[in-house]
Amino acid sequence: MSGNGFLDDAARAARWIASYRESMASLPVLPRVKPGDVAAGLPEKPPEKPVPLESVLSDLEDVIVPGLTHWNHPGFFAYFCSSSTDAGVLAEFLAAELNQNAMLWRTSPAGTELEQRMVDWVRRFVGLPDAFDGLILDTASSSSFTALLAAREQAVPDVRQRGLAGRRDVGPCVLYLSAEAHSSMDKAAMAAGFGLDQVRHIPVDENLRMVPAALESAIRADRDAGLIPVMVCATIGTTSTTSVDPVRDISEICERMGIWLHVDAAYAGPAAALPEKREEFEGWERADTIVLNPHKWMSTPIDCSILLFRDAAAMRRPLALTPEYLRSDEDGSNLMDIGLSLGRRFRALKLWFQFRMEGAEGLRERLRRHIALAGELAGWIEADARFEVLAPHPFSLVVFQAVPPRGADPDEWNRRLLEAVNRDGRVFLSHTAVGGRFALRLAVGSARGTEASVIEAWHILKDQYDQMAAD
Amino acid sequence: MSGNGFLDDAARAARWIASYRESMASLPVLPRVKPGDVAAGLPEKPPEKPVPLESVLSDLEDVIVPGLTHWNHPGFFAYFCSSSTDAGVLAEFLAAELNQNAMLWRTSPAGTELEQRMVDWVRRFVGLPDAFDGLILDTASSSSFTALLAAREQAVPDVRQRGLAGRRDVGPCVLYLSAEAHSSMDKAAMAAGFGLDQVRHIPVDENLRMVPAALESAIRADRDAGLIPVMVCATIGTTSTTSVDPVRDISEICERMGIWLHVDAAYAGPAAALPEKREEFEGWERADTIVLNPHKWMSTPIDCSILLFRDAAAMRRPLALTPEYLRSDEDGSNLMDIGLSLGRRFRALKLWFQFRMEGAEGLRERLRRHIALAGELAGWIEADARFEVLAPHPFSLVVFQAVPPRGADPDEWNRRLLEAVNRDGRVFLSHTAVGGRFALRLAVGSARGTEASVIEAWHILKDQYDQMAAD
Repeated sequence: MSGNGFLDDAARAARWIASYRESMASLPVLPRVKPGDVAAGLPEKPPEKPVPLESVLSDLEDVIVPGLTHWNHPGFFAYFCSSSTDAGVLAEFLAAELNQNAMLWRTSPAGTELEQRMVDWVRRFVGLPDAFDGLILDTASSSSFTALLAAREQAVPDVRQRGLAGRRDVGPCVLYLSAEAHSSMDKAAMAAGFGLDQVRHIPVDENLRMVPAALESAIRADRDAGLIPVMVCATIGTTSTTSVDPVRDISEICERMGIWLHVDAAYAGPAAALPEKREEFEGWERADTIVLNPHKWMSTPIDCSILLFRDAAAMRRPLALTPEYLRSDEDGSNLMDIGLSLGRRFRALKLWFQFRMEGAEGLRERLRRHIALAGELAGWIEADARFEVLAPHPFSLVVFQAVPPRGADPDEWNRRLLEAVNRDGRVFLSHTAVGGRFALRLAVGSARGTEASVIEAWHILKDQYDQMAAD
Repeated sequence: MSGNGFLDDAARAARWIASYRESMASLPVLPRVKPGDVAAGLPEKPPEKPVPLESVLSDLEDVIVPGLTHWNHPGFFAYFCSSSTDAGVLAEFLAAELNQNAMLWRTSPAGTELEQRMVDWVRRFVGLPDAFDGLILDTASSSSFTALLAAREQAVPDVRQRGLAGRRDVGPCVLYLSAEAHSSMDKAAMAAGFGLDQVRHIPVDENLRMVPAALESAIRADRDAGLIPVMVCATIGTTSTTSVDPVRDISEICERMGIWLHVDAAYAGPAAALPEKREEFEGWERADTIVLNPHKWMSTPIDCSILLFRDAAAMRRPLALTPEYLRSDEDGSNLMDIGLSLGRRFRALKLWFQFRMEGAEGLRERLRRHIALAGELAGWIEADARFEVLAPHPFSLVVFQAVPPRGADPDEWNRRLLEAVNRDGRVFLSHTAVGGRFALRLAVGSARGTEASVIEAWHILKDQYDQMAAD
């Protein structure tokens, strides 16, 4: 029986976590379930009667764990790693108890001010000037959409009041980004009423970096045709390959032509804390808005996305609206005025716990370790005739391809290799396309990963290659 | 020193929570801080060196707690209560460890399928037909915006591809809601490019319910003028007073005229689980989309908003987009295809823990208790010549006004009364405007509230009234 109250239940939950951590490394990273398997273990109707925590934890073990993709597994190398550390896990526990909603300053003075201070700590950590202010949202998708609305408001007169539809005085609105930029930007443009036809995927050079001259001509052509260039999004660390757009050159174009510059550094942003990586970030301090996600490479539990901006008034303009039932004496200090969501949970707490319990030194050391491991892996790949690196690897992601035995189709061979590697269970890699070729992605970046897990991944890749070649 | 690892730290965090719970009732619900006070207690720069958890918990106590608005305080009666129970707090602890991102089925089969099952449990709990499917988002603002994009896609040909701006074939897009509807709908219309000019605030009757005939004429007038009626939002339980729009009549207009019907039941939705309250929900089963927030009246920790819909394909149409690096074999089952956010945290876990540890019976009993307490309070107010109830109270919110001594301005008097009541510290009430009059709102609805706290609030109101009258 439970019933001995909160402290006993909390101890049970903590022991469950400790035991999950111990067993996780022996579980397959990707679960071996088919669609519907997890649902089949869950009753169709909600239970009428309560049960003690033990029963729920036991079902968690039996029904849910077999269907989890283990994001904290040391063998998780897919997409970009999202991992969590003790500091973040404990902070989320406390945040759920405090249950702050920092929509108004009044509804959480500490939530509001800690959020602003944590944004400022991150700003200092990554070396951006104090002209940047910011706030915490859930995901990069929301942050970039929020930035796009501010840019739209600046480019289109009265859009807040008059909208976009049915206006003779407003041409189509255009968003510019590289052919390698993240799909969340395309979604933002769809949501904001631009339409996919008005998203310009500017060509990239051989290093997958946006070509500034091509950007400039695209903008000119659109202006000449009566369209409204609203925003350029430059990426530092694209999702596909972590390529880095030439932000300085792009910022000059944006300044000259009066267009909002948004920098997507959702993944790579934290690396700006390393002096040896600062050159990748050249020019980002000239952006109007920057997105950086602690829940990726800072190992903050999901979700936590920071949107930095220069002009707070411009950020409030698109959506700020205070009905009578939300009026308070501190109406200038309410974070709900930026972005779409009214409810705002206490995400700042986990950043504070991380900075305190891990220290800026610890955070930098972890980033350096990930970059070094990715560098080692790239070296092994380059030295092995069976594989080739397909793109520069400035951060902690390596994009590569197996060179198939003579006669085999490279795309098909690599697709099969990835399946075999992931079927093994000890690691999980994902894929992308580079110049139209099917490519493997191995993203280092988990707080719980080790050198041993990268070495293991490399061995599995080689073993599976040899096995496929032998078959 | 910390350093004894996770289990020790978890026990420290749990003891901190237990002690916070004990002390909370003696703290003022609204903290006694001025803007800047909390920030002044936080260093300007992030710390370089790590410290043990004890130090962070001690600063949490000294710097953060004095600046918290205590959302879980039994005296919290402002806005709508958002409280959390053991089940939800423990589930958030575990969710931060598991750190699932259910963007793709593949990245969290259990997260995806538990989410769908929990949405279905809630649907059954509130008695909606199985034609409704759904998903969990962060807030009602996001849910309603997601619904609006689906409605926009249905009303405007090719908006996903061609956008809204600069098109000769598309007139202004219009959203209809009552004059009492929530500001998040206005924000959604701004974000989606409709513009505030195209938000029609339909008049309400003496019970603050949308007048269907006025809705119908507004739609006709807009159609005649070449505008595009996109969506009607009916509210069951408005934020200002919990008034209930006549959803059945509105649904008939929407069906006849081919307009998307969205029902905002973000707060009141869970009450549909009570047979004696079903009449308030008449017609909501005819909606295209419904939003219902467990993080309000189901006492799920913030954030957790459920968006229910009839037509999954219509919900995917506005934004679904799968870049190569997110392709998987199960591409039809990915929750990222609905809504703007790609990253999706494991919000389903806390709903599962609540249903299991509290039971549907327990959840219904809590709702009934809140409704009964609000009814008692309304009775006391009606029986007291110093106060009057200003609006029907079908759920757990009572909206009322003090009748000032002769000669005093009612608005001014009530504003001062609210300030005095909140300054006392034992309770926190908020306000609204009813028919232009300043009104007090007392929202019952916290899992941690008791009859004693409602009685206390009533005594404080009367005492402060008498004191003001005596001055």
